[in-house]
Amino acid sequence: MSSIPVPPPKCLQKPLVVPHRHMFGPGPSNVPPRILKAGANPVIGHMHPEIFEIMNDIKSGTQYMFQTHNSMTFAVSGTGHTAMECAIFNAVEPGENVLTAVNGIWGERAADMAERIGAKVNTIVAPPGGFFTNEEIEQALAKYRPVLLFLAHGESSTGVLHPLDGIGLLCHKYNCLLLVDSVAAIGGAPLHMDQQEIDILYTGSQKVLNAPPGTAPISFSARACQKIFNRRTKPVSFFLDLKWLANYWGCDGKPSRVYHHTGPVTAFYSLRESLAVLAEEGLEKSWERHQEVAEYFHAGLENMGLKLFVKEKKARLPTVTTIVAPRGYDWKEITAYIMKTHNLEISGGLGPSVGLVLRVGLMGCNSSKVHVDMVLAALKDAMKHCHENKL
Amino acid sequence: MSSIPVPPPKCLQKPLVVPHRHMFGPGPSNVPPRILKAGANPVIGHMHPEIFEIMNDIKSGTQYMFQTHNSMTFAVSGTGHTAMECAIFNAVEPGENVLTAVNGIWGERAADMAERIGAKVNTIVAPPGGFFTNEEIEQALAKYRPVLLFLAHGESSTGVLHPLDGIGLLCHKYNCLLLVDSVAAIGGAPLHMDQQEIDILYTGSQKVLNAPPGTAPISFSARACQKIFNRRTKPVSFFLDLKWLANYWGCDGKPSRVYHHTGPVTAFYSLRESLAVLAEEGLEKSWERHQEVAEYFHAGLENMGLKLFVKEKKARLPTVTTIVAPRGYDWKEITAYIMKTHNLEISGGLGPSVGLVLRVGLMGCNSSKVHVDMVLAALKDAMKHCHENKL
Repeated sequence: MSSIPVPPPKCLQKPLVVPHRHMFGPGPSNVPPRILKAGANPVIGHMHPEIFEIMNDIKSGTQYMFQTHNSMTFAVSGTGHTAMECAIFNAVEPGENVLTAVNGIWGERAADMAERIGAKVNTIVAPPGGFFTNEEIEQALAKYRPVLLFLAHGESSTGVLHPLDGIGLLCHKYNCLLLVDSVAAIGGAPLHMDQQEIDILYTGSQKVLNAPPGTAPISFSARACQKIFNRRTKPVSFFLDLKWLANYWGCDGKPSRVYHHTGPVTAFYSLRESLAVLAEEGLEKSWERHQEVAEYFHAGLENMGLKLFVKEKKARLPTVTTIVAPRGYDWKEITAYIMKTHNLEISGGLGPSVGLVLRVGLMGCNSSKVHVDMVLAALKDAMKHCHENKL
Repeated sequence: MSSIPVPPPKCLQKPLVVPHRHMFGPGPSNVPPRILKAGANPVIGHMHPEIFEIMNDIKSGTQYMFQTHNSMTFAVSGTGHTAMECAIFNAVEPGENVLTAVNGIWGERAADMAERIGAKVNTIVAPPGGFFTNEEIEQALAKYRPVLLFLAHGESSTGVLHPLDGIGLLCHKYNCLLLVDSVAAIGGAPLHMDQQEIDILYTGSQKVLNAPPGTAPISFSARACQKIFNRRTKPVSFFLDLKWLANYWGCDGKPSRVYHHTGPVTAFYSLRESLAVLAEEGLEKSWERHQEVAEYFHAGLENMGLKLFVKEKKARLPTVTTIVAPRGYDWKEITAYIMKTHNLEISGGLGPSVGLVLRVGLMGCNSSKVHVDMVLAALKDAMKHCHENKL
């Protein structure tokens, strides 16, 4: 018997080849050379003073992006789903009531996560493309008395930007924490964590920030920390336990940091750089640019005879646009044609919007009129060349 | 009231500066330019055919590194701790018995993780630097009747390489799964997942593989899958649910992959490249090189009058060496002096070995006699210049 029954795989003898591509789907978005270059810096230790300084920069950049003074602000070593579980695992104990607002895939997934840890989950449901009024939310809060309400600010599966004003206040009236997922919106649409009384907020690195996927900024209000640090049970995850993360990120005021996990240091470099790019442009300018580019895009789509999936203008995400799948066409043929012919990713629906929409994401550096023109030209070309069933 | 109460942070106006440093602690280790460069390739979609091909390469490379034919082999989107939770969350249901072998920090952490999800945890404990005989393990299996035994192959906190032969067989005799943590050893010390009947095995990207931290190869035996796919309850984590991960990684034989989470694509590029480097050298050569370099290092240390913390030669990790903290010196002064004067990281103890040892990791590309000579020179210099209490 050979001591190596499994031989070295032949596929690894080929060089790594990665295509360059316009990433105009709902994410990840393109990463500019400056941010890629930051991530290619040499690895240092996850407990070196220099990485703590970079982590402090991430903390400050995230406080700016989120518009919060929360000291409990950092980045999770994982993607948006990890941040989502970090929020739910810490904020909820088994047997507690959780309410999730479902108007797309994210509310469904939040409900799934909360159920897995033994929460009693109730949902309010709006059809894809819709959202909730504050009255509907208050009724549900009064009825279900949850400890946590989950709401997606940017519902990337349906293209909805959910209004946030007043919801934090309502939650607090009912002694409930407000958890907001803004993976697909923040940086591209106004959000004020403190003013809007959001208790837990997270995003991902790979959308408006234009960093590679793999880190997820998150922040907890004092009210959220108050509940979390008075839990009766430990959170199910050691890796995501806020007590440990708070110490690793220097958010707990303790003089020294204890080894928790090996932070993805090169991903922290990229994330830090992406936050620097956002700070250089300025949040307000970034919001305005995304809004202006989105309106230009939406007008171009309507001029082509295409329909926007989200009826109400103010509820349209400026980052991810959902287009009603054109009648008579196979949406898969359109996205495949555009990828093949234009080297450009746009995507179909996700979860409840599958088959109903095409989705185009123009986020961060991708949000420009030049890119809109590219997408519009690609769509026109696709509708000319793809099979049309005229019956 | 300004619409931007939190101004852009000044710290982000400074350019990112990352020092170059010899990473000879217990990890992360240095990342060679080829692997850093791979990770700086442009971002593509987490569901594009090209990334599936790269993920298939990672799967093949991991099967080789682990010496397994398990089809349920992939990489977790996270660090070693995430893989550890992936293993425990999937393999264990609430109320089940888990046994962890504690001879350092990793067994302690595995016990913590299993307790958090409601398992009944028992431990067997060896003093730091020690390990367990197969007889001791069998006694514990017979006594506690666990569904899972956790064992650290490379106990990086104490420098112990745990023998593995026969333990899988024993576990199976008692209808127990064997979970092995080889974060700090694999690639640098022989391990045969299939032949040694290991049911779940994981490692991290940042040790012998010399990729940045952030991904963690993992594999599950058919026996492990049999238990996992017949659970009565869902695992606590959606993100780490093996059913979802198996589909995302094309391990479940289904024709199409469903969106689960946004894989850290650039981290996959680096991991793929690091596995290609290992396949090019060949596993056996890598094992031999690490062993030879470790013996050269250990002889050099003993010639200096230093003592190795692990008494038994065959139980010394070839990747991470623990040196008895030299009497009369403050270990912190030594590591700080070496960092400051030699730009070289070595570290103190961790968990149960704090204050007892210095730890030096020479892993992957860092495992060479040239690097050993650098470390020995740095240690000699430190012992000359650091304060010695001769009382």
